[in-house]
Amino acid sequence: MKYSYVSHLICPKCNKTYDHNEVNQLCSCGSPLLVKYNLDELAKDVSKEDLVGRSASLWRYHELLPVVDEKNVVSLGEGMTPLLPMSAVGKDMDIPNLHMKDEGIIPTGTFKARGAAVGVSKAKELGVKELAMPTNGNAGAAWALYAARGGIKSTIVMPVDAPKITRNEVAVSGADLYLVDGLISDAGKMVGQAVKEYELFDASTLKEPYRIEGKKTMGLEIAEQMGWKMPDVILYPTGGGVGIIGIYKALNELKELGWVEGKLPRLVAVQAEGCAPIVKAWEEKKSVSEFWNDSETVAFGINVPKALGDFLVLEAVYQTDGCAIAIEDQALLEEQQKIAELEGAFICPEGAATFVAARRLREQGWIKENEVVVALNTGAGIKYPDTVKVDVPVLQKNEFLQK
Amino acid sequence: MKYSYVSHLICPKCNKTYDHNEVNQLCSCGSPLLVKYNLDELAKDVSKEDLVGRSASLWRYHELLPVVDEKNVVSLGEGMTPLLPMSAVGKDMDIPNLHMKDEGIIPTGTFKARGAAVGVSKAKELGVKELAMPTNGNAGAAWALYAARGGIKSTIVMPVDAPKITRNEVAVSGADLYLVDGLISDAGKMVGQAVKEYELFDASTLKEPYRIEGKKTMGLEIAEQMGWKMPDVILYPTGGGVGIIGIYKALNELKELGWVEGKLPRLVAVQAEGCAPIVKAWEEKKSVSEFWNDSETVAFGINVPKALGDFLVLEAVYQTDGCAIAIEDQALLEEQQKIAELEGAFICPEGAATFVAARRLREQGWIKENEVVVALNTGAGIKYPDTVKVDVPVLQKNEFLQK
Repeated sequence: MKYSYVSHLICPKCNKTYDHNEVNQLCSCGSPLLVKYNLDELAKDVSKEDLVGRSASLWRYHELLPVVDEKNVVSLGEGMTPLLPMSAVGKDMDIPNLHMKDEGIIPTGTFKARGAAVGVSKAKELGVKELAMPTNGNAGAAWALYAARGGIKSTIVMPVDAPKITRNEVAVSGADLYLVDGLISDAGKMVGQAVKEYELFDASTLKEPYRIEGKKTMGLEIAEQMGWKMPDVILYPTGGGVGIIGIYKALNELKELGWVEGKLPRLVAVQAEGCAPIVKAWEEKKSVSEFWNDSETVAFGINVPKALGDFLVLEAVYQTDGCAIAIEDQALLEEQQKIAELEGAFICPEGAATFVAARRLREQGWIKENEVVVALNTGAGIKYPDTVKVDVPVLQKNEFLQK
Repeated sequence: MKYSYVSHLICPKCNKTYDHNEVNQLCSCGSPLLVKYNLDELAKDVSKEDLVGRSASLWRYHELLPVVDEKNVVSLGEGMTPLLPMSAVGKDMDIPNLHMKDEGIIPTGTFKARGAAVGVSKAKELGVKELAMPTNGNAGAAWALYAARGGIKSTIVMPVDAPKITRNEVAVSGADLYLVDGLISDAGKMVGQAVKEYELFDASTLKEPYRIEGKKTMGLEIAEQMGWKMPDVILYPTGGGVGIIGIYKALNELKELGWVEGKLPRLVAVQAEGCAPIVKAWEEKKSVSEFWNDSETVAFGINVPKALGDFLVLEAVYQTDGCAIAIEDQALLEEQQKIAELEGAFICPEGAATFVAARRLREQGWIKENEVVVALNTGAGIKYPDTVKVDVPVLQKNEFLQK
């Protein structure tokens, strides 16, 4: 029995293959690479019942992950996040079987931890000594901290306007932190130069093949937590889109293994109205997106004007009869408040967008009343304290509390 | 088979008993009440092997929790937080078997979620419609959010200087939030008045019996995660002390059930030098503490000048041959940084204090090299962003990144 059944890397555009035992970034054709596994062999050796009793982390799926030797695993205990019934909000929007996969309950407070855990572990296995990446905040925080745990140096470049909490996370990790008076695209250019000049490993989104494998575990967990049944609909806040690509990949692998059966869930790419390149492409029935100019949204995690993996996101949406939908900032902020009041969950703006999307799609009849729906919340609200407005008077000592 | 084996409440001071089916606060003698279980019956009906495959939340221990009917459980998926090996920091302080129980990976980002989950669930079971509490921040945030999920109204009073993130958490929950220009003791007086005036349930620390039961699950999880073996030492950051009381109670219950054997771990109460009433009492071999005047520490979660349950904390320390130790702010902030750099974990100042304590106790020989040691981190560093100082230059667009 092997720890991992990884076989090789493949380019989804030109089908060129690569060796997973060597450091690889993009395909020579410029496309991101995907990881392949010996699923036939895995299916013979392992059954889904073997997972029972394993540790409550994403490493319970180690056979379906790319790390060959367990000693290279760099973990802070990430994964097996709660899949919560959302009965009150579900009643409010007439979706009784509404659930939330809560990715706020994970090291560093966002789903970025999954990609960082698997990406850093594989980088360690391949002997990487130093990595670099641009970030809007959460990904950089996760990669910097996991790299520190893995003994890998990191260089993180972040817009000066990125949230202060994530800046502090990077700083405390001991990473080389650079702030740029510009956008993440400016940070990306600097990283590109530094990667060449200093021969660093480029950990930018989808420029290394293993972040998808980490994100994939969200799909594996949803299936296992639902008793190896798939929901009818999964809604995902889509910026770079690695999560939706990963979930689609996961569910296809589970089908091939025979661990789940039937039709895949309809995958919904949820974007912000101020940055909706995937929605536009989907509406125009295109297979790639165009750069979205002057993008703007409070949900900064999905402020991605052009994703490197856009064609993979759109494939996942088309192949599952899903859809793409854009939400206004005002609506998602109101939904964030409503979910806290009705469900006690303080979620992030990106996550709130998926609930507005569910509400709208139910109103339009695209989601049926009896369908099982999972909305992904990608991060903890506490990482975005400024999205909540507080205006209460200050009492003096010994003043009587008037209700 | 019953969902809970709860039997009654008992006063640890005067032994008076109370019915767990009725709303109770303090004993008539003024002491906090403790929850008792039919452990003999539980031991006959349930074995620790029955836990395998249960959900990764603290409700896996429902037989040892006070909620009688599962339908009253109010959960956001809390519990089964990671127990992480801390090899690098352990090597640095010559404790190779050093572990961290990371309570940052839980809804609301601190261990307060455990007390709130169980406390709110039992309040719901008892028909409570509205609760009130004073808070320095994290407890109020947790109780307000869990109360919202449980359909219970809440009134939270908080010093105006309490951390903004926790203020926002309370506000977003829809709770009645009051800020007071004073200390938590001033907030406590206001809550006391409001509880009487408006007939509210008083959810102040240890004024209801069930918060301890939630915190207890940290002890249950440590035992299970170590394969039903107990560590030699557990270090706990001690403010109100509910956690250390709970862990002591948990391990005693597990011993009585026969699920663990041998000597209890030595429990260490870790406090801040600027607020160390338990340490002073322990040094003077007293069974209760005195009010600590002008208390001050950056680790605001352990800024508690006089704990209602001080005698229970001291009992836990004495009975396990533990000790109490105070740490300076400067040392715990340096340790916080070191742990992020060496282990990739951004922990809270209170948690960092336990690592300084382990370091000192090892230097003194009180902890032996081969002992198995667990340090409790009670919250995520992201809830305390201001404990990290960041001073990096801002680059201009297109500037070359000089390493």
